[in-house]
Amino acid sequence: MELKYQDGLIPAIIQDHRSGKVLMLGYMNQEAYQQTLKTGYVTFFSRSRQKLWVKGETSGHRLHVHEIRVDCDQDALLIQADLRGPGVCHLGYKSCFFRKLTGKGEEIILEREFDPAKVYGRGPQENQT
Amino acid sequence: MELKYQDGLIPAIIQDHRSGKVLMLGYMNQEAYQQTLKTGYVTFFSRSRQKLWVKGETSGHRLHVHEIRVDCDQDALLIQADLRGPGVCHLGYKSCFFRKLTGKGEEIILEREFDPAKVYGRGPQENQT
Repeated sequence: MELKYQDGLIPAIIQDHRSGKVLMLGYMNQEAYQQTLKTGYVTFFSRSRQKLWVKGETSGHRLHVHEIRVDCDQDALLIQADLRGPGVCHLGYKSCFFRKLTGKGEEIILEREFDPAKVYGRGPQENQT
Repeated sequence: MELKYQDGLIPAIIQDHRSGKVLMLGYMNQEAYQQTLKTGYVTFFSRSRQKLWVKGETSGHRLHVHEIRVDCDQDALLIQADLRGPGVCHLGYKSCFFRKLTGKGEEIILEREFDPAKVYGRGPQENQT
């Protein structure tokens, strides 16, 4: 099947295949997609760093691919994955979607699963993996 | 909270809030997001038609917003929604992610929920709502 990349990228929703929780949204270029297929671990293309990004390469919290689904327009992926670690978010949460928007602002709806400073060794910053 | 739009758009993952199934990925501009908040029904910005797109305006299969979550980078939304109808996909499936990719190609993993020709009146085509 031919996937439709836009500006060289296709969005990939990552869903925990056991709990059904949506963990994050990342982007793949063709190389990242092929590497994901080959290795069985989710690899993105980092838009900020402009390079391949094996999710969990620093933290060890990798995403093992269980199943890859594609949408009707072939321009989005849904990857069912096993999370090998406590969380995917560089701020210490299981899911990057740890806040809900309310009429008054935002509310944190998840508990922290790990201390980012210990996992990444330099405190929470952007672009951690 | 300030959302980060890229080229004026932010991706919005739609998840059935009861079953946890991921239904589709769409895109919102600021106006679509505001209209979603105001009406309580998911409104996208159609990239192909370049206009606001109330999901389900033709089919009647609307998405009622239950909760809106935002990711750590504030550049993606996860909307928990109630689907008011049999499916979101213009090809007749509950979810647009009705195929999985296999080593040999693809496999349809969902049953058709409705006949697109009856719902849309002109057979399955792109850009139906």
